[in-house]
Amino acid sequence: MTAPREPASPRDPHASIPVCVLGLGLIGGSLLRALADAGRPCFGWNRSAATVAAATAAGYEADADLAAVLARASEADALIVLATPTTVVDDILDAVAQHAPRCALTDVVSVKDAVAAAVDRHGLSARYVGGHPMAGTSESGWDATDPALFVDAPWVVCCDDHSDPATWSAVADVAVTVGARVVPVATADHDLLVAAISHVPHLTAAVTAAIGAGPGDLALRLAAGSFRDGTRVAGTAVDLQRAMIEANRPAVVTLLSEAIDRLVAARDDLRDSGSVATTVDDGHRARRRWEDMRAAGPQPIVDVTVGAPGWAAELRRQAHLGRVWTGAPA
Amino acid sequence: MTAPREPASPRDPHASIPVCVLGLGLIGGSLLRALADAGRPCFGWNRSAATVAAATAAGYEADADLAAVLARASEADALIVLATPTTVVDDILDAVAQHAPRCALTDVVSVKDAVAAAVDRHGLSARYVGGHPMAGTSESGWDATDPALFVDAPWVVCCDDHSDPATWSAVADVAVTVGARVVPVATADHDLLVAAISHVPHLTAAVTAAIGAGPGDLALRLAAGSFRDGTRVAGTAVDLQRAMIEANRPAVVTLLSEAIDRLVAARDDLRDSGSVATTVDDGHRARRRWEDMRAAGPQPIVDVTVGAPGWAAELRRQAHLGRVWTGAPA
Repeated sequence: MTAPREPASPRDPHASIPVCVLGLGLIGGSLLRALADAGRPCFGWNRSAATVAAATAAGYEADADLAAVLARASEADALIVLATPTTVVDDILDAVAQHAPRCALTDVVSVKDAVAAAVDRHGLSARYVGGHPMAGTSESGWDATDPALFVDAPWVVCCDDHSDPATWSAVADVAVTVGARVVPVATADHDLLVAAISHVPHLTAAVTAAIGAGPGDLALRLAAGSFRDGTRVAGTAVDLQRAMIEANRPAVVTLLSEAIDRLVAARDDLRDSGSVATTVDDGHRARRRWEDMRAAGPQPIVDVTVGAPGWAAELRRQAHLGRVWTGAPA
Repeated sequence: MTAPREPASPRDPHASIPVCVLGLGLIGGSLLRALADAGRPCFGWNRSAATVAAATAAGYEADADLAAVLARASEADALIVLATPTTVVDDILDAVAQHAPRCALTDVVSVKDAVAAAVDRHGLSARYVGGHPMAGTSESGWDATDPALFVDAPWVVCCDDHSDPATWSAVADVAVTVGARVVPVATADHDLLVAAISHVPHLTAAVTAAIGAGPGDLALRLAAGSFRDGTRVAGTAVDLQRAMIEANRPAVVTLLSEAIDRLVAARDDLRDSGSVATTVDDGHRARRRWEDMRAAGPQPIVDVTVGAPGWAAELRRQAHLGRVWTGAPA
């Protein structure tokens, strides 16, 4: 039985769970807007009075009083979404543990290992399921928010053997509600995966740009498509890139070592045998695989009932085949 | 005095020089079409009768008899453009030396050191000026030709102290006629420049793609903009990439070593100090420099009369500032 995506309906047990978004930057603010526009009860907190004023003026419920917002979340049994910068996660979790310790909890931070450990230190693991929407990194702040930001974007919802099924379903439902494609991933796997498809690409783009600019403006004048596309993300704000990459240190170090090994092999093959066949073939096959997956479109995860025996392992198994969760079976 | 680009006029000494294009693939075929469409007398040769038939049917002058085409070029004192694959350059130069040894000669091959050496071995250096339009690598053959291929594209026209001024002007005029921006480059510098902005970017794209696909379809399902753009050129046909990169072995080996050094520094900085500041800053600065140059548009080379004392050095000096040759002063 396939599991097609369904709009929220009165029969949907998650449709009425309120959502409390902590942090109204690009991701959190876009989420608040998308959920409110979809008719979901939701409210947000941001430290900056200016952001709260902007969100309120735009018709959304927002407040700068963290304790009051968390008290409301606790009373409403809301799902709390942690959408602040990594650097303040510990402070926010202090407040959550104090004011709303029994709420379901997720986050949209770009690494999972460190966040899960912090959640554990605060005694909040039982109802925590980590998340990570793969959308939007080159702009920031409420002014950059867009309720369509998540449409067709992959959204990791962490899925471990001990994950609470009700929380997992609530988090996945939020992602589906705003148009994302839910990808179930083991928490322990997440950081290496995003290092592979996002953090390392940022660093190889930076190195490619520096090599291209090395000979000076004459070289840059000759630059065409390969430089233009290959270095685009090197133009992303430096502090955003650093925050993302440096928070994922162990995984990025591991995969940078693999990238170095591959470039050394390319150089040695070219120098010694005049061939770059292995490097070019491997890269071509990888790119074509991605293109083929895009062309085929998302394949849905099928025949899983969240909470049934082995549900988490089965979600992960199908996700490894490239499939996505598009909502609970009708 | 600035040197704005001017359309060919009856006063233009180069406007009536016929052009003989050897090889009617993507680059040569597009050039024949663009020149003919601009009213320039031109004719082409291709080994394949099917390509000759297609070009002829499209209204262009083409022939599969190399000796006859070169005899016609010799008689008309045409500028010969070598547009064949690198692998057959020596054979073609044999024929040129036999049938049209006194014609001005250029090429559109992606490396210059090896071609210049081959031209020298055939005793054809006196009227040879190397060239390289930075346009189009992902498709090939007559069917892919496009007379607009060169519009606003950089076109390297090699410029050494011993270059024949009349040939240089004739080659530059061909590039300007088809809409390109001429970049004067010392033959000895060319191969490292294109390694920096094209060949190394192809290899870093290949490695980035392979790293991204390493964890399997699950990782590729999560891939977003940084993977999409950073690996685009890895999808180029493998044989085209290999031919281009492997022909430029010494320069690519040199710059791959620099790329390796930069990635090792990035990994060690991240592992030892938790920072990727240097790598991200260097890449960001390089990318922004390129974006700034693009936004400012091409700045023209000024106050140079081709053939006047020191003309070649002055063209190279201004090209190092990122300027382009847009045509002879009016």
